[in-house]
Amino acid sequence: MSNIEQRIATSFAAQALMQTLGAKLALVADGEVHITLPFSKHLSQQHGFMHAGAITSVVDSACGYAALTKAPPEYEVVSAEFKVNLLRPALGEYFLAIGKVQNAGKSLTVCTGEVRAFAGGDASYKVVALMQATMVNVPVTA
Amino acid sequence: MSNIEQRIATSFAAQALMQTLGAKLALVADGEVHITLPFSKHLSQQHGFMHAGAITSVVDSACGYAALTKAPPEYEVVSAEFKVNLLRPALGEYFLAIGKVQNAGKSLTVCTGEVRAFAGGDASYKVVALMQATMVNVPVTA
Amino acid sequence: MSNIEQRIATSFAAQALMQTLGAKLALVADGEVHITLPFSKHLSQQHGFMHAGAITSVVDSACGYAALTKAPPEYEVVSAEFKVNLLRPALGEYFLAIGKVQNAGKSLTVCTGEVRAFAGGDASYKVVALMQATMVNVPVTA
Amino acid sequence: MSNIEQRIATSFAAQALMQTLGAKLALVADGEVHITLPFSKHLSQQHGFMHAGAITSVVDSACGYAALTKAPPEYEVVSAEFKVNLLRPALGEYFLAIGKVQNAGKSLTVCTGEVRAFAGGDASYKVVALMQATMVNVPVTA
Repeated sequence: MSNIEQRIATSFAAQALMQTLGAKLALVADGEVHITLPFSKHLSQQHGFMHAGAITSVVDSACGYAALTKAPPEYEVVSAEFKVNLLRPALGEYFLAIGKVQNAGKSLTVCTGEVRAFAGGDASYKVVALMQATMVNVPVTA
Repeated sequence: MSNIEQRIATSFAAQALMQTLGAKLALVADGEVHITLPFSKHLSQQHGFMHAGAITSVVDSACGYAALTKAPPEYEVVSAEFKVNLLRPALGEYFLAIGKVQNAGKSLTVCTGEVRAFAGGDASYKVVALMQATMVNVPVTA
Repeated sequence: MSNIEQRIATSFAAQALMQTLGAKLALVADGEVHITLPFSKHLSQQHGFMHAGAITSVVDSACGYAALTKAPPEYEVVSAEFKVNLLRPALGEYFLAIGKVQNAGKSLTVCTGEVRAFAGGDASYKVVALMQATMVNVPVTA
Repeated sequence: MSNIEQRIATSFAAQALMQTLGAKLALVADGEVHITLPFSKHLSQQHGFMHAGAITSVVDSACGYAALTKAPPEYEVVSAEFKVNLLRPALGEYFLAIGKVQNAGKSLTVCTGEVRAFAGGDASYKVVALMQATMVNVPVTA
């Protein structure tokens, strides 16, 4: 693993919410991070679909780590804000959240994200959510 | 309990994510709903603060149920989209998410939400997140 | 011109703000609309760059008309909400706003948009703004 | 006028778009700025209502100047991003855009804004738009 992959894997392992949700870090590339989330009835809203909050949690983390791949080494990244459109009910066997850097400025990084729903061992998917987010670089404190 | 309080309590109990997070429905009023969330290390991000996704989950539900108090009886409410600003690290012993209806149209309801952090048995709080959200009325399907 | 191109050209001509800004309809395709905006010092903010409001106006219209290409014939489209990230100062000789449909539902259409800045007769550009928007279909009233 | 009022009045006068739209600075207070915009058919969308872009322009400026009242003296403010909900058609004789600071951090200031429509010399109004915005402090360059 590269240095940034190692750093993100360590940080992801420390995000207890990701473990609680059952999310896994799937890919770290320059400016792009993937996180998978299997369906769980423990994460549902009232109709049994995945709650928007669970979907948002994983795509927020994917966007944040994508931003981290572009941050200076002595900085970390926190979410300043995000906006999510829920396109359809989050139905599926598992979900793939993809965060991508669109622009990395000196202090702010703008990312877009999407969450894809997969089912039936099929490679086809439906996009269930779109995110547009602003991440902010903050100096690592010892 | 009124009819709408009963309906929201039943729906909230069916939102498994709320149980997984440890959230409780605290108040249902006309156009306003409160949800509490105790701090849990199982919901943290990498620095031990509450993850933005956990915070977003409860304020999204609070806004959705606030919208439901204004929906026609044969309709339910789903989140079309929301935007969240994270104002500071979500540090506290418990959190109170407040969703309020700003405008209830025929099909769309616009809500604002905030999440307050409390600690030390003190009535004072810090606002850790602000939401602006669009909820959509959909006919109840049998 | 196709029926939808004609309909959008007529509507665009009736958007007086577009004339006030100097914007032109550049392309209408299925699910995608382009609008150009030349730089004008009458549209600036305090540093002489294009004001975010001018940039937002054209990409909002581009997204709205993109949504209209997917709306049922007896419907028109209004903006329910949008979110814009301003990536860098809007500097350039002209700007191209591109609106694209990401998902067209029964009543709501989710679009993404971007605004590109061009200068010096060069085909290269910089993206100055990103939009994520929700458009709503409303029946045409006579 | 106080120093900050003077500074904002000068900056507002330099925002050519505000003159093009016919907007006026109406109030500068600590953390809150008001801008008025009279109805003009030159700013309309296709149905003769004020275009969302014109409405957004004034509330973006109101939020930006509200943030400036909280910025350190050697800093200015630019919009990083905003989200606007359009609650109803922007019908009225004039519009009042109100920007308020919700939280002023070291580099980012979060504001909320609303636009009120007035008609008939009546003190009552309808809120036509809500904004939630992130402003960023940048050092003044000579």
